[in-house]
Amino acid sequence: MSELAAVLAHIDANMDAALERLFAVIRIKSISTDPAYKAECQANAEWHVADLKAIGFDAAVRPTPGHPMVVAHDRSTPGKSALFYGHYDVQPVDPLELWDRDPFEPTIQTLPCGTKVITGRGSADDKGQLMTFIEACRAWKAVTGKLPIPVSILLEGEEESGGVNLPGFLQANADELRADIGLICDTNMWDAETPAITTMLRGLCGEEVIIHAADRDLHSGFYGSAAANPNRVLARILADLHDADGRVTLDGFYDGVPELDPGLRAQWETLGFTAEAFLGAVGLSIPAGEKGYSALEQTWSRPTAEINGMGGGYQGEGFKTVIPSIASAKVSFRLVFDQDPHKVRAAFRKHVMDRLPADCRAEFIEHGSGQAIRFPTDDPAFLKAREALSDEWPKPAVFIGGGGSIPVTHQLKQSLGMDVILAGFGLEDDRIHSPNEKYNLVSFQKGIHSWARILDALSR
Amino acid sequence: MSELAAVLAHIDANMDAALERLFAVIRIKSISTDPAYKAECQANAEWHVADLKAIGFDAAVRPTPGHPMVVAHDRSTPGKSALFYGHYDVQPVDPLELWDRDPFEPTIQTLPCGTKVITGRGSADDKGQLMTFIEACRAWKAVTGKLPIPVSILLEGEEESGGVNLPGFLQANADELRADIGLICDTNMWDAETPAITTMLRGLCGEEVIIHAADRDLHSGFYGSAAANPNRVLARILADLHDADGRVTLDGFYDGVPELDPGLRAQWETLGFTAEAFLGAVGLSIPAGEKGYSALEQTWSRPTAEINGMGGGYQGEGFKTVIPSIASAKVSFRLVFDQDPHKVRAAFRKHVMDRLPADCRAEFIEHGSGQAIRFPTDDPAFLKAREALSDEWPKPAVFIGGGGSIPVTHQLKQSLGMDVILAGFGLEDDRIHSPNEKYNLVSFQKGIHSWARILDALSR
Repeated sequence: MSELAAVLAHIDANMDAALERLFAVIRIKSISTDPAYKAECQANAEWHVADLKAIGFDAAVRPTPGHPMVVAHDRSTPGKSALFYGHYDVQPVDPLELWDRDPFEPTIQTLPCGTKVITGRGSADDKGQLMTFIEACRAWKAVTGKLPIPVSILLEGEEESGGVNLPGFLQANADELRADIGLICDTNMWDAETPAITTMLRGLCGEEVIIHAADRDLHSGFYGSAAANPNRVLARILADLHDADGRVTLDGFYDGVPELDPGLRAQWETLGFTAEAFLGAVGLSIPAGEKGYSALEQTWSRPTAEINGMGGGYQGEGFKTVIPSIASAKVSFRLVFDQDPHKVRAAFRKHVMDRLPADCRAEFIEHGSGQAIRFPTDDPAFLKAREALSDEWPKPAVFIGGGGSIPVTHQLKQSLGMDVILAGFGLEDDRIHSPNEKYNLVSFQKGIHSWARILDALSR
Repeated sequence: MSELAAVLAHIDANMDAALERLFAVIRIKSISTDPAYKAECQANAEWHVADLKAIGFDAAVRPTPGHPMVVAHDRSTPGKSALFYGHYDVQPVDPLELWDRDPFEPTIQTLPCGTKVITGRGSADDKGQLMTFIEACRAWKAVTGKLPIPVSILLEGEEESGGVNLPGFLQANADELRADIGLICDTNMWDAETPAITTMLRGLCGEEVIIHAADRDLHSGFYGSAAANPNRVLARILADLHDADGRVTLDGFYDGVPELDPGLRAQWETLGFTAEAFLGAVGLSIPAGEKGYSALEQTWSRPTAEINGMGGGYQGEGFKTVIPSIASAKVSFRLVFDQDPHKVRAAFRKHVMDRLPADCRAEFIEHGSGQAIRFPTDDPAFLKAREALSDEWPKPAVFIGGGGSIPVTHQLKQSLGMDVILAGFGLEDDRIHSPNEKYNLVSFQKGIHSWARILDALSR
């Protein structure tokens, strides 16, 4: 039996203990965006440090101005090194009443189709995913006493809340963290049988705007129509973000956005992706983005503007004839190719100011940004990883794009000069960021296998 | 000393007791729109029944499918009769943190300018106002043993929450409630020295729309641009309610809206109203309504559309990259002259449906409606009331328009064939429906005087 085969067998024989550990970490309510959960984020970081020390890593909680990082090293094996990145924080769970069970009390459920899933907030994003890598390391150490290659691990606690402290932390600790390749487990498979390495990711520019009008809430009978209504001002600003063809109207928004390379477009067309299946899974049917582009292009290679939240005035039960004093919106732009997040932010602010009545005021809050990213798919490390994944799963691995942003990939490239292999085992129906998040049990088990294989492949 | 002079002297000698009663009723949290306060609404109705019985009225709590009515009669004096209407319910108090003191613990404060005010939710709208009438009745009974004319009193508990049960109650009890004239104390003075009778009131059509898109909240990275975003759909619907000139775009919206009679417009122009003062008082400066109309016309004689509330997606602290499943808005239309609220509601729903993507769904909730109203200003009762008010206040009383809706006035006209004298002692800076609502102490005391005088005048 090869070392790898022994490691894979060890993983299967010890799945119950691996699940116990995942459940323990899901129970920690590490909602980074809400200050009420600060202590839980700290506790989650400490949990990982203790766990990584138990495996044999040199691990420590590393403070930041926000939630702490976890940094761990086991570089006792010679060879080309890897830095694994994951995030231990999770999204808020509201609206809680839409969850079938406690988001912080994980369970194993069997779906009507027979699929076994792990339930709970973070079961997929990113606690379940990051634990696939840590469990693979644990198995290698248990079976062989060492890791196949030198490994460092960085776990962030602010990925879901803007990640403002990560760039500074990477720069301040560049020499300690730099490795030959980055590894991240925070993305999806192509489908349940086909693993994927994501080589294109959209960037992000998150922005909040608050429109201030009168210095108090007003009665809409007395003041209606004469007094500026910030809801009306905001609705105009938000509606004007798109033209009738679904294109974003900000000045210069499409600077640095070329048409997709025909070869890559042709490869994507062979994936069998259909808008009907993609949107049908969530109760929709009609691609809502730019006319002239497929739903796959809309989400992988075209930039967007989305209103993630908006609110103003009375939203409770019943009715209140009020003209509110303020209204606000949280808007995010997904960026592609060479779009500059800072230019996009400036263009959005100009878009707001151009539509602001002279007696209203706009306040802006910056919520993080990251440029889009592409990695070279002919690099040996990428080819080895693709082969390792193909060995584990029913169908060969594919190189794909991704609609979401993982700003750390750009920062690893910029600050540490590293390429990153983005291999994850999430599925489209995992409901990450939504009520009833889940992670397939097979994603967890074969995900651990996959990292065990990738570590082995990168050592050759 | 005339009977009237004795009554006025009695009022002044007993102000402390009158204030104690007003404070007691402000302490009752009768927020009608929120089901959590149902018992408080019942308690408020019971308080008035006990109080009116103490004065000598035949009074009872009268159940409805919602909050109860209070009905009281004292018709022992012969002559032309009056029905007084008020409402004991109040608006919600959110955002509570903007109140300087407990909205349900009334106090007397002295403003920096020396004006004494009564603080608390409902101090003006409508608890303070309705108690001016009841205290006037109490004084007449105390001094003379009878009222100058036959009086009935109707107090509603759902004025701030749509008033859906009032029309049915009026129709079911038409013979009992019908009187020669209606009296309502729920409007403002022209200014602090000039009393006013409001003879034109805008109507109202309140509507809520909920846009449903995907069957769950989605990650805006994975789904952004391909999946319909209900925030974006709603922003377009709301922005399209007005054109660039501030006119409402609904089909047929201006049907039944004539230009203002030049004579009345000329009279209004003599009132010395300025947009600078009206809007400057709340931190604004530029009339936001239809171009070509003064701010006074915009609020008295022109119809409007206002977004009273809107919301969708994540509105908490921080950021959440979500595409929500739903977004909703509460919209109200203020109506003038012969606009039909039902036609306006239908036109709004068509406006929504015309802008709804095929895979989204719109849900509508009706929130009450009332047509605009005008009363004949050459009627003897109106002339007598104007003279009585002119006798009390520093400056002569004026006939004015009003931007708000008091649907009961229309219903009294329609169901009971009654004209209504709308005489109130509120002021523009009373902050009704807002934090820190107040009612000037002089409004309360001279308001009681005013009703004592009007009852006397109507008996002649």
